[in-house]
Amino acid sequence: MLNIGSFELSSRLMLGTGKYENSQVQKEAVEASATEVLTFAVRRMSIEEGSTDAFEGIDLSRYKLLPNTAGAKNAAEAVRTAKLAQATGLCDMVKVEVIGCEKTLLPDPVETLKASEELLAEGFTVLTYTSDDVVLARKLQEAGCHAVMPAASPIGSGLGIINPYNLRKIIEQAEVPIIVDAGLGSPKDATEAMEFGADGILLNSAVAKAGRPVQMAEAMKLAVQAGRAGYEAGRIPKAELASPSSPVEGVSPSK
Amino acid sequence: MLNIGSFELSSRLMLGTGKYENSQVQKEAVEASATEVLTFAVRRMSIEEGSTDAFEGIDLSRYKLLPNTAGAKNAAEAVRTAKLAQATGLCDMVKVEVIGCEKTLLPDPVETLKASEELLAEGFTVLTYTSDDVVLARKLQEAGCHAVMPAASPIGSGLGIINPYNLRKIIEQAEVPIIVDAGLGSPKDATEAMEFGADGILLNSAVAKAGRPVQMAEAMKLAVQAGRAGYEAGRIPKAELASPSSPVEGVSPSK
Amino acid sequence: MLNIGSFELSSRLMLGTGKYENSQVQKEAVEASATEVLTFAVRRMSIEEGSTDAFEGIDLSRYKLLPNTAGAKNAAEAVRTAKLAQATGLCDMVKVEVIGCEKTLLPDPVETLKASEELLAEGFTVLTYTSDDVVLARKLQEAGCHAVMPAASPIGSGLGIINPYNLRKIIEQAEVPIIVDAGLGSPKDATEAMEFGADGILLNSAVAKAGRPVQMAEAMKLAVQAGRAGYEAGRIPKAELASPSSPVEGVSPSK
Amino acid sequence: MLNIGSFELSSRLMLGTGKYENSQVQKEAVEASATEVLTFAVRRMSIEEGSTDAFEGIDLSRYKLLPNTAGAKNAAEAVRTAKLAQATGLCDMVKVEVIGCEKTLLPDPVETLKASEELLAEGFTVLTYTSDDVVLARKLQEAGCHAVMPAASPIGSGLGIINPYNLRKIIEQAEVPIIVDAGLGSPKDATEAMEFGADGILLNSAVAKAGRPVQMAEAMKLAVQAGRAGYEAGRIPKAELASPSSPVEGVSPSK
Repeated sequence: MLNIGSFELSSRLMLGTGKYENSQVQKEAVEASATEVLTFAVRRMSIEEGSTDAFEGIDLSRYKLLPNTAGAKNAAEAVRTAKLAQATGLCDMVKVEVIGCEKTLLPDPVETLKASEELLAEGFTVLTYTSDDVVLARKLQEAGCHAVMPAASPIGSGLGIINPYNLRKIIEQAEVPIIVDAGLGSPKDATEAMEFGADGILLNSAVAKAGRPVQMAEAMKLAVQAGRAGYEAGRIPKAELASPSSPVEGVSPSK
Repeated sequence: MLNIGSFELSSRLMLGTGKYENSQVQKEAVEASATEVLTFAVRRMSIEEGSTDAFEGIDLSRYKLLPNTAGAKNAAEAVRTAKLAQATGLCDMVKVEVIGCEKTLLPDPVETLKASEELLAEGFTVLTYTSDDVVLARKLQEAGCHAVMPAASPIGSGLGIINPYNLRKIIEQAEVPIIVDAGLGSPKDATEAMEFGADGILLNSAVAKAGRPVQMAEAMKLAVQAGRAGYEAGRIPKAELASPSSPVEGVSPSK
Repeated sequence: MLNIGSFELSSRLMLGTGKYENSQVQKEAVEASATEVLTFAVRRMSIEEGSTDAFEGIDLSRYKLLPNTAGAKNAAEAVRTAKLAQATGLCDMVKVEVIGCEKTLLPDPVETLKASEELLAEGFTVLTYTSDDVVLARKLQEAGCHAVMPAASPIGSGLGIINPYNLRKIIEQAEVPIIVDAGLGSPKDATEAMEFGADGILLNSAVAKAGRPVQMAEAMKLAVQAGRAGYEAGRIPKAELASPSSPVEGVSPSK
Repeated sequence: MLNIGSFELSSRLMLGTGKYENSQVQKEAVEASATEVLTFAVRRMSIEEGSTDAFEGIDLSRYKLLPNTAGAKNAAEAVRTAKLAQATGLCDMVKVEVIGCEKTLLPDPVETLKASEELLAEGFTVLTYTSDDVVLARKLQEAGCHAVMPAASPIGSGLGIINPYNLRKIIEQAEVPIIVDAGLGSPKDATEAMEFGADGILLNSAVAKAGRPVQMAEAMKLAVQAGRAGYEAGRIPKAELASPSSPVEGVSPSK
């Protein structure tokens, strides 16, 4: 069971909406994933009018909704976007996202922290997208974020976890849920993140832009379960056989 | 469906026996894995007498049995061991394994090929354990092996796939099933192998020596399914966002 | 030629002092490295009294001195330490270092930026140690830092460049010198950093704690020259020979 | 000093000929590299007539000549090619190369071993190109090869050392010189190979096809020296700082 703020979730997979070929594929992928949390960009929806066209065919009562502040370039814009989302009623939690680099879509650490602090002060349930900077992840936790969402790699890149060291350090020192976000490209990436001890993952392009999105959604569901079960079961240590007494990196994460 | 020789298999996970804490754990792990193929070392069993103590509690009629020739140091020993296994009746297929290095337990390419050729000539269904040498894998295929089983890394090391390049080349040129064998340590490794397009994997230590073997067997079952589904669904390409038209690595930086 | 602030440097290798077995080894290593910039921790010296014991035997007139603010946990402490260094006269430039995590010695992004801004406002020549966060590196550049010093990996870890992707992005968007700092462990790491297009590197433990520090200092000198020459010469592209038209990694395997 | 057969070499860098834009660039690159061993493909030269056009401008008396059997697809062809080279007088040593895969240019392990054995029986000084298969490398050594030349990655790929594990195992168990051959793309790759304890490297495309071949030859010379010095000096161990008691892979190779 994954607890974020006041929410209890059985699934550890959060799914983005809005990049699918059509709403039918989106609907089926959402179902195949067994997710309980749907994310969406406030900016990209006609959400101001409270329209739910973007979720066509999906029974929203079955999901927690996690609008994100994509498009915000500083704390003020992020806060404003979060409030817009709240006003529509389509907001159980909010994902703070403040982009600091147009090319890589990597986040601005200073503005990200500031936006999170302001929204926390206003009572939001805040999940914050961040780089894999170890110290910033802890500062976000100390600021009171309900979850911290480090990027595996740049948004949409499919590069997977490019810095396993940092991700493991972030998880080691975490006291709030760590949801690995951005850059995961395949089920292997999902399994790997969960094996490191992540509490969950968030996917969008990896499912929506896959060759067969619905089958990929199912694959990702299984991958998350596999990684979590593997984490709990405790993997064997890595060992160089020629020097059996010394493990090589990556010893069992649990136990 | 995975076809090896005349056998049709629904599960793509083969499981080793004999390293578990006790036979009860082994039995439960075998069940949790949903495997259809059990492997065992002929040498380590009192198999000469046809004893099935090593499989205590397991209904052998439900499984294909894959004895291996572990312990053989040359082709002659491997052939002899295979025939012993056949004589006991506990042999649906045989896994050729000729160790060439006591330290790393890596196989001897020359003797491995020779043993495979001899057993094929005698009508065995032969699955051959090999290093990840690309050319040797193809020579084994050309010799008529029913499946080729490249090592991800040394037996029992848990290092996972140490040479993804070679493994992908082996899979690209394969016309018989490729079963990734040896060295897989965690569900992530299993998912990765399947995503590359492997037809199946064989596990032993990664399950038997895990903290909780039964839960790990379940995790591995899911991981194989996730990787296979991901392979079939077609992952998104990897891309450097800042220069989307170019390969991820290594272009000349200057000029 | 490497230009930092008003300084022109022929060598692209900066060397730390203070971790050597004795001052004679330190002196010889400094000479073998052919460095022109020596760094030292203000905190660890009896620098308040202007003592130069720590540099025993070294002719300081031949070097630029780069005191660092190691030990500072926030911007105020870093600023204070920098001013102490300045007061002693042993300060050509200053390296801002604000640790945010006692375990990994990784820097605090927010305080690091703040300290840099304050010291820049006071006219210091500022080189700032930072994580490999891409956006923060750019913010430091925009703040006016004379050089940005991203960590390859945690201080003293010897892990080398753990996130080549981020380091290359930082270098791509740099308009001030990028000096790779912290975590480099061997000549290979130095060569790699320079090949990526770094303007220089800073080493301490990798030389001072090597088996033979003086020989390692010589090795590092050569490694920096090799990497720089390789960068300028333009390496061949990486290519998968079997499918030369496509990127090395990760294209959708099916369809 | 590197000893191969009866030859004593000061340089640990061997250089291929024949892929340069023109003979002037080749000549200058050869000089900049400070190599003492030049390799060439017997097949690609009009060597049958004893022509040395391919070495235009190079004073061959200053170099050891290492013809290779590139183009051979089995042992018989390799042996024949080696004898051709010998007949011309342009042959101090011979590099056995038997390609087993046209796409990847990876070697055929069985035919490679056979060709080596035959040429050794005829009194040649034999250096054998092989994959990074650990056991085959040892079998070549046991057969009497004067040096073993494992591929870092496929010829011309520039992928560098794709399986550091295997390369280190090959070096660990070596009693004859290990010359890393094929696939090295940049100075970093050269430094890395030497740090692992390789006795030398052989380069061709990485220099001949670089943006500026002469400067790259100089870079590679420095890189080899840097890597060797680093190996001898003994690098610091890699360590995860959060768990200081256990090194992470890659401890000092020397001492």
